[in-house]
Amino acid sequence: MNTALEPAHEPAPVTAEAPSNIAFIKYWGARDLETPVPFNRSLSMTLDACRSICSASPLGDGKEDEIVWVEDPAAGRSAASAEAPPSFVERTRRHLDRLREWSQGTAASYSGGFRIATGNTFPSAAGIASSASGFTALTLAVAAAMGFDLPPRMLSALSRSSGSGSAARSAYGGYVEWPDGESNAAVQVLDEDTWPLCDVVAVVETAAKKVSSRDGHRLAVTSPYFAPRLAGLGGRLERVRNALRQRDFEALGSAVEEEGIDLHLIAMSSRPPVYYWSPGTIEVLAAVRDLRADGIAAYATMDAGANVHVICQPADESRVAERLETLGSVERVLRDRTGGPPAWRGGAEL
Amino acid sequence: MNTALEPAHEPAPVTAEAPSNIAFIKYWGARDLETPVPFNRSLSMTLDACRSICSASPLGDGKEDEIVWVEDPAAGRSAASAEAPPSFVERTRRHLDRLREWSQGTAASYSGGFRIATGNTFPSAAGIASSASGFTALTLAVAAAMGFDLPPRMLSALSRSSGSGSAARSAYGGYVEWPDGESNAAVQVLDEDTWPLCDVVAVVETAAKKVSSRDGHRLAVTSPYFAPRLAGLGGRLERVRNALRQRDFEALGSAVEEEGIDLHLIAMSSRPPVYYWSPGTIEVLAAVRDLRADGIAAYATMDAGANVHVICQPADESRVAERLETLGSVERVLRDRTGGPPAWRGGAEL
Repeated sequence: MNTALEPAHEPAPVTAEAPSNIAFIKYWGARDLETPVPFNRSLSMTLDACRSICSASPLGDGKEDEIVWVEDPAAGRSAASAEAPPSFVERTRRHLDRLREWSQGTAASYSGGFRIATGNTFPSAAGIASSASGFTALTLAVAAAMGFDLPPRMLSALSRSSGSGSAARSAYGGYVEWPDGESNAAVQVLDEDTWPLCDVVAVVETAAKKVSSRDGHRLAVTSPYFAPRLAGLGGRLERVRNALRQRDFEALGSAVEEEGIDLHLIAMSSRPPVYYWSPGTIEVLAAVRDLRADGIAAYATMDAGANVHVICQPADESRVAERLETLGSVERVLRDRTGGPPAWRGGAEL
Repeated sequence: MNTALEPAHEPAPVTAEAPSNIAFIKYWGARDLETPVPFNRSLSMTLDACRSICSASPLGDGKEDEIVWVEDPAAGRSAASAEAPPSFVERTRRHLDRLREWSQGTAASYSGGFRIATGNTFPSAAGIASSASGFTALTLAVAAAMGFDLPPRMLSALSRSSGSGSAARSAYGGYVEWPDGESNAAVQVLDEDTWPLCDVVAVVETAAKKVSSRDGHRLAVTSPYFAPRLAGLGGRLERVRNALRQRDFEALGSAVEEEGIDLHLIAMSSRPPVYYWSPGTIEVLAAVRDLRADGIAAYATMDAGANVHVICQPADESRVAERLETLGSVERVLRDRTGGPPAWRGGAEL
């Protein structure tokens, strides 16, 4: 993969930003959870405001990695740093090892330590895939700190090697499809400027979920409905692709909402069953149906969690957000939109 | 069916009582919604406190049916009567026509009118199958008013001809199985005294549901998961039967809860999807899992509605009811138990 890649610049401290994404067709269940290799193609919309920011500075040979968690990275140098949770440090360290190993096949092999300072512009546990943006930002920053300008396909494949399947899709802006077994990198389906849409996130639960996405992925194949889901998923993906091609929002939304529910039907029929919904999830889902009954095209989807992403068109964003804010179980509403690709710049800003 | 049946007594005013039931294996989806003929065998526990009471008085030839709805039929003659909803009057009248038609094949054919006064001992829209107890009480009362002592198998088949599949199971006490296509009457699996259990009903929603059970039944076959559900249902039914045979409450409960969720997975994956859960449903389901984590064997099931039936053993009933009463979304808690068969007595008490 990396044999043809030459370093583009001198190793140096850099800062990268990478977007999260919301899946319209979900990655759920894996042939191999480590690599990971999904059972099905997934397709997501890249987000704009919900991003991870990561500064990486090469410390040189023989130095230990320093990993700093930054609470509000948009504040730059003045951002408060916090003790990174041990599981986060552990996953980050393992990915740094992978990236150093990867560099051994390049003309700029690097085996020294890094100072990594990183954080998300969105609250943790808000139902937004922080591993997608986090590992993409980390991968982009570390590769750039080693001297490489990673092309998106390589960024996608390397980010995904962290174990986060959704990270495979955060290497591009717009709408992005991650193939199953045939390939290990995602591809862009449509760019962010061609059809900007909104993702209004109704946060109903901020506590960490009781069952991790990873366990949910692992158990998915135990559902009696997993095989029939896969059998029908190609058709649903095609509906999403066609809707993107034709900018047919209602066709897109109905497929997206069907899929958002479907992940949870698989989870609830896994053995043992996995429950991610909270009472607020049901309240928001009903409110989205009420919005549609009132003529506002809004469609719900959820990842492996209780919070609900409500997809709508820019002209309806305010009405959707205002309606969601009136619901008793909604703690906060985040407004996001179709976003662009990740990027990096020189200098460690965090 | 009725050719061998002879009247046992003179036609006269009577009062019948019939129990509701809670399905452990659900009737969901029908080959024929009118008869009805289910796709799968179902199995229920007959309830005790949740009953319908029905007085039937023959008015004689040429008389119109009078149908009176009684709000609190346990109060007898002093019970307040209320305007019966038009849909209730219509369904009752159609069933009276069926029963008169049935009587034409007997030695006591009757084509006159009836005064029917009936009601339920439990609140309407509480997630308790009022059509099961209601049509069984009506069938038993009208047949007795015509002079017949219906044997349970015939009561089951005639009650079911009302269109209420669950009514087929209310002809017996204890635990009752309603076969699919092969037969049209239910059979008793275990009597009510052999293994009394509790049904603690958490009422979280008293508004009428937006989609009727009938529409849910009709749409069930459109779910991509309906065929795999049926394929696995024989095994789940066998788990319930074995658990009843062995009085293995945990084996029973885990199959019952799996099935209670499964009906809703089929509903939510029907096209268009059908949603019966409310926020309170999710709160109660989580509380039931918490009860189990605390060592209290309690298992949830739901019919086509938002309210949750929590099945437990008598020794745990109070603890279960008290826990459910603490939940913010629970409006009231009803306590019921395994009940006996329907019965009738002379005299119109209502």
